Amino acid sequence: MAQIIRVAIDGMGGDNAPDMIVGGIDRASKVLDDVEFLLFGDEARLRPLLDAHAGANAVTEIRHTDEAISAEEKPTVALRTGKKSSMRLAIDAVKSGEASALVSAGNTGALMAMATVVLRTLPGIDRPAIAAALPTLRSQTVMLDLGANIDCNADNLVQFAVMGEVYARAEIGLAQPSIGILNVGVEGLKGNDAVKEASAILQSSDLPIKFYGFIEGDDIGKGTVDVVVTDGFTGNVALKTAEGAVNMFSHHLRTALKSSLRTKLGALLSMPALQIVKNKFDARRYNGAMFVGLNGICIKSHGGTDAVGFGNALGVAVNLVRRDFNEVIKEDLSRVMQNDRPEIKAAVN
Amino acid sequence: MAQIIRVAIDGMGGDNAPDMIVGGIDRASKVLDDVEFLLFGDEARLRPLLDAHAGANAVTEIRHTDEAISAEEKPTVALRTGKKSSMRLAIDAVKSGEASALVSAGNTGALMAMATVVLRTLPGIDRPAIAAALPTLRSQTVMLDLGANIDCNADNLVQFAVMGEVYARAEIGLAQPSIGILNVGVEGLKGNDAVKEASAILQSSDLPIKFYGFIEGDDIGKGTVDVVVTDGFTGNVALKTAEGAVNMFSHHLRTALKSSLRTKLGALLSMPALQIVKNKFDARRYNGAMFVGLNGICIKSHGGTDAVGFGNALGVAVNLVRRDFNEVIKEDLSRVMQNDRPEIKAAVN
Repeated sequence: MAQIIRVAIDGMGGDNAPDMIVGGIDRASKVLDDVEFLLFGDEARLRPLLDAHAGANAVTEIRHTDEAISAEEKPTVALRTGKKSSMRLAIDAVKSGEASALVSAGNTGALMAMATVVLRTLPGIDRPAIAAALPTLRSQTVMLDLGANIDCNADNLVQFAVMGEVYARAEIGLAQPSIGILNVGVEGLKGNDAVKEASAILQSSDLPIKFYGFIEGDDIGKGTVDVVVTDGFTGNVALKTAEGAVNMFSHHLRTALKSSLRTKLGALLSMPALQIVKNKFDARRYNGAMFVGLNGICIKSHGGTDAVGFGNALGVAVNLVRRDFNEVIKEDLSRVMQNDRPEIKAAVN
Repeated sequence: MAQIIRVAIDGMGGDNAPDMIVGGIDRASKVLDDVEFLLFGDEARLRPLLDAHAGANAVTEIRHTDEAISAEEKPTVALRTGKKSSMRLAIDAVKSGEASALVSAGNTGALMAMATVVLRTLPGIDRPAIAAALPTLRSQTVMLDLGANIDCNADNLVQFAVMGEVYARAEIGLAQPSIGILNVGVEGLKGNDAVKEASAILQSSDLPIKFYGFIEGDDIGKGTVDVVVTDGFTGNVALKTAEGAVNMFSHHLRTALKSSLRTKLGALLSMPALQIVKNKFDARRYNGAMFVGLNGICIKSHGGTDAVGFGNALGVAVNLVRRDFNEVIKEDLSRVMQNDRPEIKAAVN
């Protein structure tokens, strides 16, 4: 029998918690074998939901707490006063080794702050980053940082590259993912100091990493590389801009399809195709971003997701545990650090 | 009779120059009244093209030069050695007052460098920015900077806001455009120092400007504001990411529509609707970005465009001349400068 994987869950985080949480556990329980859940939150609310979902009930243990972190709470306040919160207790369960991963759909800033303080960063990592897999023309691409770090230097970007490479192997299952740094042009002279220096370090590196070089914004959708490395400001803006652009396009398409009887009939006949595309771009499919760079697997679910999306975030957590994600990252990072060359930085700047 | 507007054109800039240039002039000549063109470039190549396009021929005067700036030329080299180039002579024609605007589809960096050196920035403007109108859910939104300035401080962003506001009035015809600063969240605490400080300055400003506050990436497509202000790194990445996302979406749609006989028939019936959407997102419609902040109207056409796109870029130039764009900007800028408050910057940082 395979080893049981235990995942801690913040039962009270997210717009539709705890209903969608228990619904998500129920869905996950049907596709994930050898997994158990520690569900932190208000037992009076969680118990009836579990009673109504036999699949979830069979694999879940409730750990009661009255406290929860609100969506508006400042990270610093959450750190100071949230020690008994469902979010914090889920993080503590990973720290103590009781769980191998945690999933929360709650306040991103609070989760980042508490997870970083409790779990600490991996050796060689200055700051954790938010990584997720996104749909592209070819298949999927891992992108990081999606918003954890507003200002990043070259060392941060190099660390993101290493972590993203391991993430793409674990989460998408690629043998040797290619890595690109997001920039305003592909020529070496373009961009700010951080991207130029990071590119020089990766180019001269002895790491077994397939470094492609610079990419531009449209390369994300094209799937030019398997891992897109960028700072958290640019990454967050780019991700949301892409979502907005796709929404705008599909809105205009729907409006146009309603413009005449002929196109309405066409839309009806095209429905199976429209459904394929709708499913492909369903944000719930890509739900579950990881705070990479921490001693422990910490997955952030979108706050507004439903049971389908939350179930997928649980799947991301279990997958990364099975792939021994953090152990692989640690090995790769130790090789990067042996490879750190001050003379490159001096030459670029 | 209305006053004749004279537009200088770099006849040799762009992937498909000079054919698409003359084709674009021909198209523009059919919709623009009281406009003449000074066409700089190789007469041996331009003359036969004009002879073949009667509409263009009637309103165009060739100014011969043997030299042209290549797409690969470094800006510094172009500045030093390109003084007789078709691009430079078109800029010089604006400087001398012979033309009211110039349009080039050539090397962006070289155009920016030469136009800035020859025309100089407007009083109160530290750096020019690239501005363009983009399609949104509502209608169109002006975005700047799209790539001229990699690093921007708060003063740059405030200047972009003022210039973008005037641009939206002139180019889209809005009475009182709203302005947003692109950020990773809408709360005041989020973002880097530059966006926080710029937001504080605009909020406390006495300018007759409708400042909305921070917006996120998906607000661009939604059309939440009429003017999106950002640094050139983020703006360039966001614009190209949006293009890539829309291309990816429509590619998946086309593939899905070919998946069965039923959906193929549906696509055939839906064709008028698909055509509407295709036209709406046709990049040629939005061709013609402005280097705002210079003493003179300088329009950059996409290098890879065709006659339709280049004709539109000529239309953008003429429209901005008719709206007296640079005079309005100068007035607004002088009001901003009276309004500069060092105590705000001190409070934010």
